[in-house]
Amino acid sequence: MARELYAQVGSLPLICPHGHVSAELLADDQPFDDPVSLLISPDHYLTRMLYSQGIDPSLLGVSGRGTAAPVDPVDPVDPRAAWRTFCAHWHLFRGTPSRVWLEQSLEEVFGVPADLSAASADAIYDALLEKLASAAFRPRALFDSFNIEVLATTDAATDDLRGHARLAADGYGRVIPTFRPDQVVDPDNPQWARNVELLGALTGEDTSTYVGYLAALRARRQVFIAAGGAATDHGHLTASTADLDHADAAKLFDRLIRGRGEPGEPELFRAQMLTEFAAMSIDDGLVMQLHPGALRDHVRYLRQAFGPDSGGDIPITTEYTKGLRPLLSRFGADHRFRLVLYTLDETTYSRELAPLAGVYPSVYLGSPWWFFDSPEGMRRYRRLTTETAGFYNTVGFTDDTRALPSIPVRHDVARRLDCGFLAELVVEHRLTLDEAADTAIDMAYRLAKSGYRLDRFAAA
Amino acid sequence: MARELYAQVGSLPLICPHGHVSAELLADDQPFDDPVSLLISPDHYLTRMLYSQGIDPSLLGVSGRGTAAPVDPVDPVDPRAAWRTFCAHWHLFRGTPSRVWLEQSLEEVFGVPADLSAASADAIYDALLEKLASAAFRPRALFDSFNIEVLATTDAATDDLRGHARLAADGYGRVIPTFRPDQVVDPDNPQWARNVELLGALTGEDTSTYVGYLAALRARRQVFIAAGGAATDHGHLTASTADLDHADAAKLFDRLIRGRGEPGEPELFRAQMLTEFAAMSIDDGLVMQLHPGALRDHVRYLRQAFGPDSGGDIPITTEYTKGLRPLLSRFGADHRFRLVLYTLDETTYSRELAPLAGVYPSVYLGSPWWFFDSPEGMRRYRRLTTETAGFYNTVGFTDDTRALPSIPVRHDVARRLDCGFLAELVVEHRLTLDEAADTAIDMAYRLAKSGYRLDRFAAA
Amino acid sequence: MARELYAQVGSLPLICPHGHVSAELLADDQPFDDPVSLLISPDHYLTRMLYSQGIDPSLLGVSGRGTAAPVDPVDPVDPRAAWRTFCAHWHLFRGTPSRVWLEQSLEEVFGVPADLSAASADAIYDALLEKLASAAFRPRALFDSFNIEVLATTDAATDDLRGHARLAADGYGRVIPTFRPDQVVDPDNPQWARNVELLGALTGEDTSTYVGYLAALRARRQVFIAAGGAATDHGHLTASTADLDHADAAKLFDRLIRGRGEPGEPELFRAQMLTEFAAMSIDDGLVMQLHPGALRDHVRYLRQAFGPDSGGDIPITTEYTKGLRPLLSRFGADHRFRLVLYTLDETTYSRELAPLAGVYPSVYLGSPWWFFDSPEGMRRYRRLTTETAGFYNTVGFTDDTRALPSIPVRHDVARRLDCGFLAELVVEHRLTLDEAADTAIDMAYRLAKSGYRLDRFAAA
Repeated sequence: MARELYAQVGSLPLICPHGHVSAELLADDQPFDDPVSLLISPDHYLTRMLYSQGIDPSLLGVSGRGTAAPVDPVDPVDPRAAWRTFCAHWHLFRGTPSRVWLEQSLEEVFGVPADLSAASADAIYDALLEKLASAAFRPRALFDSFNIEVLATTDAATDDLRGHARLAADGYGRVIPTFRPDQVVDPDNPQWARNVELLGALTGEDTSTYVGYLAALRARRQVFIAAGGAATDHGHLTASTADLDHADAAKLFDRLIRGRGEPGEPELFRAQMLTEFAAMSIDDGLVMQLHPGALRDHVRYLRQAFGPDSGGDIPITTEYTKGLRPLLSRFGADHRFRLVLYTLDETTYSRELAPLAGVYPSVYLGSPWWFFDSPEGMRRYRRLTTETAGFYNTVGFTDDTRALPSIPVRHDVARRLDCGFLAELVVEHRLTLDEAADTAIDMAYRLAKSGYRLDRFAAA
Repeated sequence: MARELYAQVGSLPLICPHGHVSAELLADDQPFDDPVSLLISPDHYLTRMLYSQGIDPSLLGVSGRGTAAPVDPVDPVDPRAAWRTFCAHWHLFRGTPSRVWLEQSLEEVFGVPADLSAASADAIYDALLEKLASAAFRPRALFDSFNIEVLATTDAATDDLRGHARLAADGYGRVIPTFRPDQVVDPDNPQWARNVELLGALTGEDTSTYVGYLAALRARRQVFIAAGGAATDHGHLTASTADLDHADAAKLFDRLIRGRGEPGEPELFRAQMLTEFAAMSIDDGLVMQLHPGALRDHVRYLRQAFGPDSGGDIPITTEYTKGLRPLLSRFGADHRFRLVLYTLDETTYSRELAPLAGVYPSVYLGSPWWFFDSPEGMRRYRRLTTETAGFYNTVGFTDDTRALPSIPVRHDVARRLDCGFLAELVVEHRLTLDEAADTAIDMAYRLAKSGYRLDRFAAA
Repeated sequence: MARELYAQVGSLPLICPHGHVSAELLADDQPFDDPVSLLISPDHYLTRMLYSQGIDPSLLGVSGRGTAAPVDPVDPVDPRAAWRTFCAHWHLFRGTPSRVWLEQSLEEVFGVPADLSAASADAIYDALLEKLASAAFRPRALFDSFNIEVLATTDAATDDLRGHARLAADGYGRVIPTFRPDQVVDPDNPQWARNVELLGALTGEDTSTYVGYLAALRARRQVFIAAGGAATDHGHLTASTADLDHADAAKLFDRLIRGRGEPGEPELFRAQMLTEFAAMSIDDGLVMQLHPGALRDHVRYLRQAFGPDSGGDIPITTEYTKGLRPLLSRFGADHRFRLVLYTLDETTYSRELAPLAGVYPSVYLGSPWWFFDSPEGMRRYRRLTTETAGFYNTVGFTDDTRALPSIPVRHDVARRLDCGFLAELVVEHRLTLDEAADTAIDMAYRLAKSGYRLDRFAAA
């Protein structure tokens, strides 16, 4: 029965409302150099697992972009040697989603065998090299072959969006930006003051004042909207929000921008800014996404040797009920507002997130995120959220990936798992088969499209 | 095998030790007005889900009982129009327990088809109207048809219990009250001082002193016991308890009743009162129930427009191990004491509640509560608690409902799920079929009866 | 398919890297007195469950070793009467792992029927008595029959390890000690100062200074290593670690050892000591195990009447991400270091522990612990950890038991469950059958052996 349902959704177009593919990659459309720089070194799911078993990331082609040298400073690495190292440790991925993604990408996108091992490494490497040299495996050709209806990238608030402009000029208007203002919002970021200054320079606003700072953020959002943007994204340590009156918020900003903040004030400012962004979303219609709960750069060595976002983030417990109350008390009932919540703390699914999404008109559940974008993670997500929030307070699947070739398989895994869950409901007489089929299409396609306000896009 | 087990429990009498059906409803025994006021508007599981998709509760017949007007002030609503609105959104309930409850109630209690939709709304409405006009669908007739051995209502400590008196006079002694003192125990309740005064007036005690206050509570418990009451129920934000000495507790009460409490003292007082109630339970034998973890009225709009208990409560993390320690250190080993614990934080099942119930003679696990009174919620409950607490430190199922017609289906769902769980144990050779059958009867009937000390009741 | 996998691992030798069997028991090799003192009274899983239903532990042969008399002071109890009491309550264990362990031990180790009940109690008791009188059921004979390749005991830092010496002299060098320093590390322990003094006396170090105290600990570790020890074990309330500079740590020790510690300083000292022990592990190669999260002696009565470790411990929420950061920032990337983490808070599996083990070269996941050493607990463990940490950042199974006769069945349950999990992956085409078979052997045997650095042992 799961297969029967899947047959109706397996080939639907892909809606990719949140991800990290680079617009420049598609704008440049250069051939990929080699299998390692395409598939291995940028994927911290992969490098992290090998590091956990003592393999230094530099041996997999990860560049030392940090302040200290890697332990094994192999830079640049020979890609074939890196590929061999990776293949020799393929057993580490047994039972992981990375295994499914890479295996299925190799077989279905590249048409090469996926039984990776020390013995097979060279042959597969050569087969991949040959593919990458052909026109069919350039970025745009791959993208075109994936049946992607819309792809959102993630971009700093100060990004010039030139990649998007070049893509739009070439008819790729379905690659749209997402407004990610973390770097101009987080006073704990050592570059914060400089980023806020840059924000002012870009917009002609005086960002040394709170009023000018907010005006600059509003102006940048308009630039993103003009480039097709439909959403904002906020990566905070916690889901705390605040609802200060304007004068207090302005004074808080003043103290912080002058480097005179007190302990706790950076967190209060971030909390306040979430509420400010909600207000802006009500005005300009951008869907607001919140991704809290990752303690960044827990692994000191990875941060020091390879820079931020090298795979060393670890989740913490996350609280939503009390944290979101200030924001939701003000805007939660407003039908123009839409807030999509993600989590790295699965205990919140049934306790907080499903109850919040199941009552507030503005609140939606994002798909299982990061460590939980996996078969078991998806099952838990549906089992823990559906009975309270239903299917229609969720926003379908989002692949959240920087790995272009893995996009189809990631959607495919989600579609299979969701059909499996629906099939269980049918078997237990909790849903008819017709309803399940209708819901499967919603989960695979319609909910993401409507949830992220992407209705203007259409299948190619 | 699950079906074989179910065959032995499906028609057992219902024990309803905790719920919210109104005694007046049964005492008055008036025909129900219409399907909406019977099935939809009082059920916040239903109105909450439609509100989450932007349908104002007033469109479903919920009365504006708050301090502000609803956004769409349709009051009174035309019940047929409300029914149509509800049916047009029936798909929102796919995968939820509400779907199962309403579908099965319509089919099995009312004998009408349950394929709700915009198209079928009028026909089903008319069929229901016709049923409700007949004598067989008056409250007592429905109640009589349900094979209910005992039904506990939930009543404020200051309730006059007249409904129960009228019922007893008519031979309905199996409808019993439950002592719920929250409104006279919570100093954060704006009506607290007035409620405490009323408590004094009702009992002739001087409730301006702690001694008189405690004496008044004891007196009210005796009134409940005389009316058949077997239990108390406590809805607190947390499971914190305290064990102050009498003089300190008295001073705390004095400060609070005079409005001179300091921050934290209301919580300390509620914590102390749980221990006082435990002491009273040891004296008078009432089973003590604790329902912590709901942050009430999170949705400001619902509170303001429709009053409390309108569906806007959201759970928070709940701590039991440290919180209950003062109370349990004093009374946990006392065989006369019985404390039934519920939770909205499922992480506590395996971490705290099963270990507590699995060692303290006085502690029992209540059934899955509220958002977790559902097929998946019940599965999780059994899987997470049984290995540590077994079956015999639980107290069976409680329907916890204010919806009279849904009582049989709620018990039926629990019986089916529990039989499914037992069948799995048999399949894995962890239980014999005979033992499973015996346990099924315990779970469906005996454990609730003995756990809530309702042994004096007998099948009709 | 699960059975096919199990066929390949069911008879592999047992690696027992962490447990509580007493070395003296094996060194003395005296016949067991009776079934109760062997199987019931020392097993707090069993006595705890009966106590939860009001049966005093003294009725099951538990000795009153506390400061107050038991409620029912039956000491010494007649073992046959205790056995009858136990058997009459056998139904309490339905659905629990204790049921599986005892049933399978009786049948497979002792060859007696396991349908315990009031009626069968005497016959089974007599059959067991007869077995225990024979040479084949003496401790060493049992041990020899279990195909145990290595068995680690748990021993206080101040233990003289004479039992191990006697065993080694008799050719039982595969029974090795584990260094458990909690009693010399916890300033909240009323015996702490005395224990620290004893530590000094044993090593000839001046343990009134921090330098001498650390030197004494290092010296004791060498004694354990000389006796075959491969690991340390740390049972702390929390997973907090600290990384004070030496001078501050020394001052902290000075204040505490003189009884002048301030609130919070005992916890800070324990936190600091975890980091000190990590440093020692890097020097001497002992694998470090951390077992946090049990609030000891929650049940006052059990502590007072029967002493510590009488089954009255209750878990609390446990935090690892922030707590371990000081230690891991210093030593987490060091390949010589190995830290095995256990938990009583299953919410940390997917949120914290799998991400930590899945990135730090030094961090490994211990097997499901205590309440979670059970079929459902093992399933949850694999489902919640594998997708992020894989199989190769775990260290296989550890039985953690003080019940010698239950060792084989405990390993057997784990092997069956792990094979079941692997079979699911094969069915879902996420693993080939060959890979699953290879992984099954890793999970049943190799990972424990390599993870705890026990490679020098070999099958008998």
